Amino acid sequence: MAVRPPPTARCDRCGRPIDEVQVALPCPDCAGPVGISFDSETRPNARRGARVDGLWRYGAALPLRDPNDVVSLGEGDTPVVRLPRWGAAHGMRNVFAKLEYIAPTGSFKDRGTTLVVSRAREIGARELIEDSSGNAGASVAAYAARAGIPAIIFVPAGAPAAKIAQIAATGADVVRVEGPREAVRDAAIEAARSRNAYYVGHNGNPYFEAGTQTFGFEVARWHFGHVMMPVGGGSLFVGGWRGLQRAAAPRAILPRFHLAQPTGCAPIVAAWRRGMGRPVPIERHPTIAGGAEIEHPARGVEILRILTASHGGAVDIHDDAIVAARHELATLEGIDVEPTSALAVAGVIALLRDAVIRSEDRVLIVLTGSGLKVPA
Amino acid sequence: MAVRPPPTARCDRCGRPIDEVQVALPCPDCAGPVGISFDSETRPNARRGARVDGLWRYGAALPLRDPNDVVSLGEGDTPVVRLPRWGAAHGMRNVFAKLEYIAPTGSFKDRGTTLVVSRAREIGARELIEDSSGNAGASVAAYAARAGIPAIIFVPAGAPAAKIAQIAATGADVVRVEGPREAVRDAAIEAARSRNAYYVGHNGNPYFEAGTQTFGFEVARWHFGHVMMPVGGGSLFVGGWRGLQRAAAPRAILPRFHLAQPTGCAPIVAAWRRGMGRPVPIERHPTIAGGAEIEHPARGVEILRILTASHGGAVDIHDDAIVAARHELATLEGIDVEPTSALAVAGVIALLRDAVIRSEDRVLIVLTGSGLKVPA
Repeated sequence: MAVRPPPTARCDRCGRPIDEVQVALPCPDCAGPVGISFDSETRPNARRGARVDGLWRYGAALPLRDPNDVVSLGEGDTPVVRLPRWGAAHGMRNVFAKLEYIAPTGSFKDRGTTLVVSRAREIGARELIEDSSGNAGASVAAYAARAGIPAIIFVPAGAPAAKIAQIAATGADVVRVEGPREAVRDAAIEAARSRNAYYVGHNGNPYFEAGTQTFGFEVARWHFGHVMMPVGGGSLFVGGWRGLQRAAAPRAILPRFHLAQPTGCAPIVAAWRRGMGRPVPIERHPTIAGGAEIEHPARGVEILRILTASHGGAVDIHDDAIVAARHELATLEGIDVEPTSALAVAGVIALLRDAVIRSEDRVLIVLTGSGLKVPA
Repeated sequence: MAVRPPPTARCDRCGRPIDEVQVALPCPDCAGPVGISFDSETRPNARRGARVDGLWRYGAALPLRDPNDVVSLGEGDTPVVRLPRWGAAHGMRNVFAKLEYIAPTGSFKDRGTTLVVSRAREIGARELIEDSSGNAGASVAAYAARAGIPAIIFVPAGAPAAKIAQIAATGADVVRVEGPREAVRDAAIEAARSRNAYYVGHNGNPYFEAGTQTFGFEVARWHFGHVMMPVGGGSLFVGGWRGLQRAAAPRAILPRFHLAQPTGCAPIVAAWRRGMGRPVPIERHPTIAGGAEIEHPARGVEILRILTASHGGAVDIHDDAIVAARHELATLEGIDVEPTSALAVAGVIALLRDAVIRSEDRVLIVLTGSGLKVPA
C-alpha cells in the first residue's frame, strides 16, 4: 500500500470544501451532510498474509493518506461464534454472535476511533474533543493517548463514576456539563471551535463511519439471513450496512438489518412503526441501556432507509427484558455483555415472536460492549 | 482435521495411567508430573483460510479427539502492537506488546480454559471445580457455562466483591474458604474427589498448558530478542516457551524469556538470585499484583529451567513501580492493564537498567489482563 493522495471532505449537498477539524458537523453553509472522497479499492480486500493485525488488513479500502502509519491497538477481526445453547432455548438452530466487545477498549467503537484518530494525526490536529460518557469517550481517550494528542471528553454531570474512571484512566481531561444531553454536545462543539480543536463527534464523523464499515467487510465473509444490533446513534448500523454493500459479491443477497432500542428511548422504532422517514419526538424515560440513550439520532433518516432497503425490523425492549436477556446469554453461553448489547439478544426473541425471523434462519447477533464495563 | 485417537494421560515418571478428572494433580502413586500423549502435527500450522477464529486454527496441533467440536469463544490470535511513545520515554526503539487481554473474559487464561473445558466435555465431565478468585476463576466459569457443565469456583474468603461478581456473572457457584491460599486449593481438590468432578487446577493441568502453547505458536511468526511477562503460577511462561519451541523453525534463535514478580511474593526471583533450581521459601507481603500472588508455584522447577535455557532474567517489582508503570503505559499508549500485567512493563525497565536488555533490542511485553477488571 503506497502513500496515496489525501482524502478530501466536502458537503455532499452544496459541494463546499470542509475544514476537517469540523468534519463531524453539518455543512456550515447549507447544513448538508459532509462526505469524504478518496482514492481506494472499490471492493475491500483483506491482506491476510500481512503482518498487520485486525481491521487495518483492509487499509487499502480506508480513507487515509498513508494506511501504513496509523493509530491502532489491534482492533477489528472479532470472532463469530455459534450460540447453540441459547439458540436451543429459543428453538433456533443457526444463531451466531459477533463478539465486538473483544476489542482494545471493550467495545466496537474502537473500529471507528482508529480511523478518526489516525486521520486527525495525519492532518496535524493538536487536540481532540468528544462528548460521550460511555464507550465512545473511553475509546477516544485511549486512542488519543496512543497518538500523543491531548483529549478533552465532555460528559453529563450525572455520569457514573465508573464510566468517568474508564475515560480518565488513559489521561484525558473530563469536563462535566449540567443539563440535557444536547447541552453536553453543544459545549463540546463550542470548545472545539474556540480552541481550533478537532471535534470527534463520532456519530456524525464520516471517518468514524469508514472505520465501522470494516464490520461489514468482515460479515461479508459469511452468509447470514439476518443481522440484529442495538442502535443509539446508529454508527455501526449505517457503517456496517455500507461496508457490507461494498464488500459483498455482485448480486449477493445481503442480510436483513434489524435493530433494537430501549423502550425508554426508542425514536427510530417509533418512526418505523408509524411509517415515518425520520425519527419522531418521543417522551424519554430512564433505561439501563445507556449506550442507546440518544433522543435525536443525527443519522435517523439513513437508519430508517436501511431498514426499508434491507427489509429489516425495529423493536423496542423493556429494561426487565434486557436484564433477563443478559443473564440468559451469560449463563447459557458464558458471554457477559453490557445491558446495551443485551438489547440485541432480546430483539431477536421479539422478532422471532413476530415471525420476522424464523427458527431455521441464519441470524447474527452483534454484541457491542463488554459486561466488565457494567457489572451486573 | 479428522477425528483422531483420543489423548491419553500418564504419569511421566512411573507410567501409571491417570483418570483425566484428576489430570491436574500429581500422580497418586509416585507424585510425578502427569503428561498427555496424543497424535498431532509435530509442528503447528495455522489454517489461515479456515472459517475458524482464533487459536483453534492450530487445532490439528492440540490434544483433543475432535478439534472441530470445541468449547470456544473465539480466544487467541491477539494483536501485537508497537509501543513507540513508551519506548521513546525509555530510549527504546523496538519495543512491542502482545495484547493478551483482548480476549473473551479479558485475560490470557482463555487460551488454556478453552482446551481444558473442551477436553472435559469430551470425556463426559458432569461438573467442573476450580480454585481461583481471579482471571482463571472468571474464565473457567464462562467456558463451563458455554459447555453447559455446572461449575463450582472456590475462592479465599477475603476475595474482592468485584472479582466474585465476575465469576458469578456466568452462573458458577462460588464457595468462600477461610485460611491461606493452600486451604482454598485443598478444599477444591477434596470437593472434586468426593463429587467425582473434574478438577481444573489450571497451573498443573497439562491441557491448560497445551492451550497456552498457542501463545508461543503465534509469537513464532515474529522475531523478538526478548519476551517479558508476569509470573504467578507460570502457566503462560511454561506453555508459551514450549509452544515457541514446537513452532519455531529448526535452528531458529529463540527469544530470551524473562519474568517479573511482585516484591511481596517473588519465590522464583528469590531462587534465581541464589542460583537455586527450585522456588525457595519466602516471607510474603500484600501486593496489588493479585494475579502473581502464588507463594508455592507448582511449576517452579520448570520455570527456573526455562530461565536458564533461554538466558532469561527474573526481577521483582515494588507496588509503587507497578502503579507507575500502569499509569505510564495507559497515558503514553492508551493501553490500560491490570496491575499484574504492569509488572511486565516495569520489568523491562528493570532489565534495561541492569543492561540485560539493550535499547536497540527487539522486546515483546506480554500484557495479560484488562484494566477494566481492576479500575485504577
